[in-house]
Amino acid sequence: MVYVVEMDVKIPETWSEEKIADYVAREKETSQKWQKSGKWVYLWRVAGKYSNISVLDVESPEEFHQIISSLPLFPYMTIKVTSVTKHPNAVRENIL
Amino acid sequence: MVYVVEMDVKIPETWSEEKIADYVAREKETSQKWQKSGKWVYLWRVAGKYSNISVLDVESPEEFHQIISSLPLFPYMTIKVTSVTKHPNAVRENIL
Amino acid sequence: MVYVVEMDVKIPETWSEEKIADYVAREKETSQKWQKSGKWVYLWRVAGKYSNISVLDVESPEEFHQIISSLPLFPYMTIKVTSVTKHPNAVRENIL
Amino acid sequence: MVYVVEMDVKIPETWSEEKIADYVAREKETSQKWQKSGKWVYLWRVAGKYSNISVLDVESPEEFHQIISSLPLFPYMTIKVTSVTKHPNAVRENIL
Amino acid sequence: MVYVVEMDVKIPETWSEEKIADYVAREKETSQKWQKSGKWVYLWRVAGKYSNISVLDVESPEEFHQIISSLPLFPYMTIKVTSVTKHPNAVRENIL
Amino acid sequence: MVYVVEMDVKIPETWSEEKIADYVAREKETSQKWQKSGKWVYLWRVAGKYSNISVLDVESPEEFHQIISSLPLFPYMTIKVTSVTKHPNAVRENIL
Amino acid sequence: MVYVVEMDVKIPETWSEEKIADYVAREKETSQKWQKSGKWVYLWRVAGKYSNISVLDVESPEEFHQIISSLPLFPYMTIKVTSVTKHPNAVRENIL
Amino acid sequence: MVYVVEMDVKIPETWSEEKIADYVAREKETSQKWQKSGKWVYLWRVAGKYSNISVLDVESPEEFHQIISSLPLFPYMTIKVTSVTKHPNAVRENIL
Amino acid sequence: MVYVVEMDVKIPETWSEEKIADYVAREKETSQKWQKSGKWVYLWRVAGKYSNISVLDVESPEEFHQIISSLPLFPYMTIKVTSVTKHPNAVRENIL
Amino acid sequence: MVYVVEMDVKIPETWSEEKIADYVAREKETSQKWQKSGKWVYLWRVAGKYSNISVLDVESPEEFHQIISSLPLFPYMTIKVTSVTKHPNAVRENIL
Repeated sequence: MVYVVEMDVKIPETWSEEKIADYVAREKETSQKWQKSGKWVYLWRVAGKYSNISVLDVESPEEFHQIISSLPLFPYMTIKVTSVTKHPNAVRENIL
Repeated sequence: MVYVVEMDVKIPETWSEEKIADYVAREKETSQKWQKSGKWVYLWRVAGKYSNISVLDVESPEEFHQIISSLPLFPYMTIKVTSVTKHPNAVRENIL
Repeated sequence: MVYVVEMDVKIPETWSEEKIADYVAREKETSQKWQKSGKWVYLWRVAGKYSNISVLDVESPEEFHQIISSLPLFPYMTIKVTSVTKHPNAVRENIL
Repeated sequence: MVYVVEMDVKIPETWSEEKIADYVAREKETSQKWQKSGKWVYLWRVAGKYSNISVLDVESPEEFHQIISSLPLFPYMTIKVTSVTKHPNAVRENIL
Repeated sequence: MVYVVEMDVKIPETWSEEKIADYVAREKETSQKWQKSGKWVYLWRVAGKYSNISVLDVESPEEFHQIISSLPLFPYMTIKVTSVTKHPNAVRENIL
Repeated sequence: MVYVVEMDVKIPETWSEEKIADYVAREKETSQKWQKSGKWVYLWRVAGKYSNISVLDVESPEEFHQIISSLPLFPYMTIKVTSVTKHPNAVRENIL
Repeated sequence: MVYVVEMDVKIPETWSEEKIADYVAREKETSQKWQKSGKWVYLWRVAGKYSNISVLDVESPEEFHQIISSLPLFPYMTIKVTSVTKHPNAVRENIL
Repeated sequence: MVYVVEMDVKIPETWSEEKIADYVAREKETSQKWQKSGKWVYLWRVAGKYSNISVLDVESPEEFHQIISSLPLFPYMTIKVTSVTKHPNAVRENIL
Repeated sequence: MVYVVEMDVKIPETWSEEKIADYVAREKETSQKWQKSGKWVYLWRVAGKYSNISVLDVESPEEFHQIISSLPLFPYMTIKVTSVTKHPNAVRENIL
Repeated sequence: MVYVVEMDVKIPETWSEEKIADYVAREKETSQKWQKSGKWVYLWRVAGKYSNISVLDVESPEEFHQIISSLPLFPYMTIKVTSVTKHPNAVRENIL
């Protein structure tokens, strides 16, 4: 099943530059692990914003939540989740 | 360049069932023409809503607008447009 | 997989009382068919509003969309969809 | 009487990891106490978000408030409360 | 149990003056019937708006919904419902 | 003249438990002083939220502001103010 | 007592040009009657919008509501009402 | 003085295609008259939406309102107005 | 030219009482300087909120911005700006 | 391609005056570098707010994001991005 997710990151203003750098590095590592697994299919930067739009292809809502909540910045993001399906007008055989 | 678009359709309440059917049929035809051209890469149904999320890969903002505004229901949709780029953490070589 | 859905109904102001009664009757019939199938587990009225909160237990996002979009008033509702999973603090064995 | 509640948790950015862990542990303990009492019927995780949707079956608004406000993170959550009733189209005998 | 309700009335623009007058008259009759029963305790006009704030003291959420949904303009109102309880700082013995 | 007020309290996350307890105690004292004066007629807890809905019967907007702004947590609340009047459909002789 | 009011006018799309002209003329007549009485102190056009911001100096909330609700377009406006008082930092002796 | 304006057009659903075409043609004529006068400096289409962002350089708020309100579709647009000035960090000598 | 401005003040929670008192004192001084100049015509307190509505009569958008941005609490306020003009239905000769 | 961007700056309340001054100085330097390159065509101050509206003329969404995200205050701004194209009613030959 496929989810489209929009994540807006809000770096806490009281964090030191070291703490920020540490979180950002671990964020990259975690998201790349999931991308390489094939579950996190697309990761796009929203042009001009500290946000991304991602597309995940997962086995279940549980697996989807496991991936998103493993991100170190998860508690500091505003997240919009959309569950999508094949559209009746789509010409593409598969959803992805 | 890639745009992610969310379109919420609001069928006018005063239209006859024939007028609705005509618009819906032409909507399908138009969207499929653009999908076959390779410009409209993904067309997903938002589960449980009369909405879609689409991904378009176009030459320019002009071409993007030409495609979306050619949809017969264009004047009756609420549309959210997001311009996206390659994310620094993306492992995929290309954006699509 | 489980979805929680909130549906706000907005009866079109230009419809005759007959057309409204026809839609409302078919709405009831459709929702009861799905409830009896066991897919539409809970249908609650929001106290004081022309809205409902429902809980559906389905095989896939496709099946979920098939059920919701089969409702006659589907094009005239504002719908909020939430995909839910088992909570780590839940004591109940199963999600439902 | 039945309430559907959506709680969005926002962990304060200035708290130490110890303080966060302490609050999270007491949150779990409190919510499980109420679940075991039978008052807090469902506790679902919103997929992809630090939020839950819960269903409580209580004697009165007072009891409902007593339960929710006993959560240690209560002052740091954004909470949406919906009072629900049996729906006229519901086929299920009881509301829960 | 006590509910505070805010109702914003939106008279449909396509209705004739006769139809509007008929609805408004029946609205008055219905709300006064419930006020006289003692269930609809306060009915206030929001100064400068076509809205009211009301306070109802009812036996159950079912009774509350029965009262509000009996109003002829119910399908054409935007309604905000708040379930309230005795406040720990209240000096008044009873809630009303 | 009568105002209906909704106050959402947001306890600052950086305050010590002592500072919070001190503010909460003075908040109680202040609100009870005004309730006993007869100006602050109702103080209700919103079920499930750190909010209240209050009804004040005052001489003037000046007096109303004097009361609300005397609350120690006033700078940390989100406040919605509604000025209300007697409703033409009200059966009750007086507004309160 | 002084109210600041913002009124956004939404001309119903189904009205004939005659009906619109009639309403607009009566709207002017009504607002000018109240301006000449001294109760409606300022009537400003919001630059670039079909909206106005007005300042009224009235005896009571009842009188304020009587004035605003006498406008023929009252049911078709979105209205924001703000009750204001003398500011402690104001140098002007009187509020108006 | 310079205004940035965003106009979202909402074509009334009940209008005939002739009425729509007539309004659209007069809209074009009016906007071009003002553009040629040098007052309406930029008129941009928002990519993917039935909206425009415009920049006007006018003598006064009165002149600005005269221009925008002369558009035939003015009553059917949602308009956001922003008054702008020279920015202290701007390197450009003049504002336009 | 005339602007109507609504300013919501949000005192930073981490500031000491001395820092708050200092800012509040300088805020008063600055606003009174502009009021005495005749540019800041009205300064009203929003009843029940830490907000004001002000009316300024200035030479240009530049002068308007100079005044508002000179307030010490300017970076900590949420500000809504409305540019207004003489209304065609206004009976008053001048705008102020 | 042209983007219109609105940036609302929110200076973190916990920063020292030195840290703020440092960020503001580097913000100026960065924005002026891009303005001199010809990519950042307009930088306007929103009158009365700590916000700007900017117009950028760039080669690609990537270049646009590179410019905006190079601003030191980028993580502390709320940013609204609009991709614009030539309008069919525009009389100007080029978009800028």
